[in-house]
Amino acid sequence: MDERWQALKPDEAQSTPLYLQFARKLADAINAGWWLADEALPSERTFSDELGISRVTARKALDVLLEQGLIRRRHGSGTFITPRLEQPLSRLTSFTEMLKQKGFEPSSVWLERSIATPTHDEVIKLGLSPTAQVVRLKRQRLADGVVMAIEQSTLPLAYLPDPQAVGSSLYAFLDAAGHPVVRALQHIRAVNAGPDIAASAGIKQGEAMLLMTRIGYTADNVAIELTDTWCRNDYYDFVAELRR
Amino acid sequence: MDERWQALKPDEAQSTPLYLQFARKLADAINAGWWLADEALPSERTFSDELGISRVTARKALDVLLEQGLIRRRHGSGTFITPRLEQPLSRLTSFTEMLKQKGFEPSSVWLERSIATPTHDEVIKLGLSPTAQVVRLKRQRLADGVVMAIEQSTLPLAYLPDPQAVGSSLYAFLDAAGHPVVRALQHIRAVNAGPDIAASAGIKQGEAMLLMTRIGYTADNVAIELTDTWCRNDYYDFVAELRR
Repeated sequence: MDERWQALKPDEAQSTPLYLQFARKLADAINAGWWLADEALPSERTFSDELGISRVTARKALDVLLEQGLIRRRHGSGTFITPRLEQPLSRLTSFTEMLKQKGFEPSSVWLERSIATPTHDEVIKLGLSPTAQVVRLKRQRLADGVVMAIEQSTLPLAYLPDPQAVGSSLYAFLDAAGHPVVRALQHIRAVNAGPDIAASAGIKQGEAMLLMTRIGYTADNVAIELTDTWCRNDYYDFVAELRR
Repeated sequence: MDERWQALKPDEAQSTPLYLQFARKLADAINAGWWLADEALPSERTFSDELGISRVTARKALDVLLEQGLIRRRHGSGTFITPRLEQPLSRLTSFTEMLKQKGFEPSSVWLERSIATPTHDEVIKLGLSPTAQVVRLKRQRLADGVVMAIEQSTLPLAYLPDPQAVGSSLYAFLDAAGHPVVRALQHIRAVNAGPDIAASAGIKQGEAMLLMTRIGYTADNVAIELTDTWCRNDYYDFVAELRR
């Protein structure tokens, strides 16, 4: 940890205020994955002692990171890392891949794997015949054991005759079955969490969440996958680079 | 309108159920801008009479569009168009341009144009010196007279010495001043509307909104603009095409 303390130390010779320097260094360290999802940060006193800065400087820096959503305080138990999953809006990355890149341990818990009659919306979005049946898959997605998102996928039964056959990665399953998703159209909306999603995601009912709705297409341009992902807003950070 | 009724008529000879055919045709008409933002649709009875379809078919089609958020019912006063602003997540389009393309009449109402001391977050995101001052611009953005979004921009005072000088388009002002924004980094989050934003946007407090935070850069890579846009969720539809 000695080298790490060194990397966090602000430089008195610079004109930038110490708390801003320290806030930037600490933000970089959090983004670089020095701490686990939901792991406690050292206390203000520890930062102050180890870095030779005042408690006021340490507190002001932590306030900046709180404002940015990188950390949060829990009454009586300290300051915790909020893992931010920075997801680019141009590349189709699986949850599993994205987490591994970030240094988190991905996992999921199945909530549902069943055969069902499609809703109107599913019939339209997947271009189904009104008598077709679908497979519905619903699961919690976790990083380091913390629920990040709830994901519900609907696929035409023709492409996935046995819902139990899907392992930890739907995309890996479709790749192996010879129907890889190569392109997707993704819509993003904000929604207030309903009672079921709130309970599964571990948040309060009514809290704002990002809802991504993705329609995935095979190389033959068949809509094979309709996935709704309710993302915990405190963990996800969707980023796009725009040009004029 | 005769030609229009013709374009909405479902075809009995096709195997697709009539209500689904009619729902698709009506969705296309709404997306093509046949009605104004918040304009009332013809009633179920009118659709049924003009198109020679049953009231049940008309109602089932309208239910599909309700589910998709394209229309909404107001108690006792009928069914209204919800304008959907489909915004691509890869190109930097101004609100004004986007609305004109869609056939809506854009306008805005200033809520604030002032000189202020930057917050911590603004200092960091705009890379300001801690003593620098900023200009803060806040306005309602409207389509056909309906509030779609609340926008708040912060710019270094050095680039915009007179906040009152900005007309209806900030980007047009910066272009004319020789500091065009050529690139932007945009983050998207979901938030529960606070009391001020809810009142300005004409929605209930706590309702989920999309908050876009954009940092705009000049050709010299100077962060010149930090803009928060609270988008009414019922009007905005953010779309991205993803490839693997």
